Amino acid sequence: MPIKSRIRTIPDWPKKGIMFRDITTLLKDPEGLKICVEDFIKRYKNKKFDLVVGIDSRGFILGGVLAYALGKGFVPVRKKGKLPAETESQEYQLEYGTDTVEIHKDAIKKGQRVIVIDDLLATGGTSLAAIKLVKKLGGKVIEAGFIVDLPDLGGGKKLKKEGINYYAQVAFEGE
Amino acid sequence: MPIKSRIRTIPDWPKKGIMFRDITTLLKDPEGLKICVEDFIKRYKNKKFDLVVGIDSRGFILGGVLAYALGKGFVPVRKKGKLPAETESQEYQLEYGTDTVEIHKDAIKKGQRVIVIDDLLATGGTSLAAIKLVKKLGGKVIEAGFIVDLPDLGGGKKLKKEGINYYAQVAFEGE
Repeated sequence: MPIKSRIRTIPDWPKKGIMFRDITTLLKDPEGLKICVEDFIKRYKNKKFDLVVGIDSRGFILGGVLAYALGKGFVPVRKKGKLPAETESQEYQLEYGTDTVEIHKDAIKKGQRVIVIDDLLATGGTSLAAIKLVKKLGGKVIEAGFIVDLPDLGGGKKLKKEGINYYAQVAFEGE
Repeated sequence: MPIKSRIRTIPDWPKKGIMFRDITTLLKDPEGLKICVEDFIKRYKNKKFDLVVGIDSRGFILGGVLAYALGKGFVPVRKKGKLPAETESQEYQLEYGTDTVEIHKDAIKKGQRVIVIDDLLATGGTSLAAIKLVKKLGGKVIEAGFIVDLPDLGGGKKLKKEGINYYAQVAFEGE
């Protein structure tokens, strides 16, 4: 599997019991980056949409490429306090406590069609918060695209339950 | 000026007296993103290099595109504590206190040639720290590329003094 075999697994990071899937080994390899980007291009080149929304910060890498390659605009969803103009905010649950993501209020026009990109789908908390931000601005999320899905953590089910299409290039399940 | 006119200035952000140059308005416009990326492609397509290093986190957007478009690998330099494998660290001065950036120790092989990309050159602290990380791993920085230069803040002079070539698409000076 040309994508999966290039992803490095770091056991017990950031804490004991977590198998961290590290995409930096995929992206530093020119062939790995190319395969990964072209898989997204193939999937989205015939879809009708206006913007790619990338999630802070690994979602910026692939999100930016996809927007450029398909002639769309790129919009960042960022952690709280990072965007300088007027923002819309969305809180989401973490294991302990909450976190907040933001988007510029003028980043998406009503009715614009959006692909949301991040590197990894785990519990789906951040992705769903980003999707809610797009919807708050009147945008329509066509699909959320990821490099890696961790189905054991239930993010995909959560997105489906909210009526959101999602796509992941590879999955690590029961590993 | 097709790039400059698409960059939004936010006065007094993140604090009074700062004129913040916001590239999100440039990147959300498909034509703006295209012009910006193609300017970097034109500059670097005939240069001999192996990797694009993007600086956390706005440097990931253009850095990822450039790496893909020119068939190179992409390597992130990140804020402290974000990279899962063994890292090299570099501290740098802030106005008050210090900050640290990191790179994976195995991200660059000795002798590899690198373009460092970030969105904005201000005092040059982060860029120079990123460049030092590349050098610590035995990489050679061919050039540091930015969308925006703020010459009044002296980053360009600092890079030149260290013998680093740099390039910026636009400059805001005395504005």
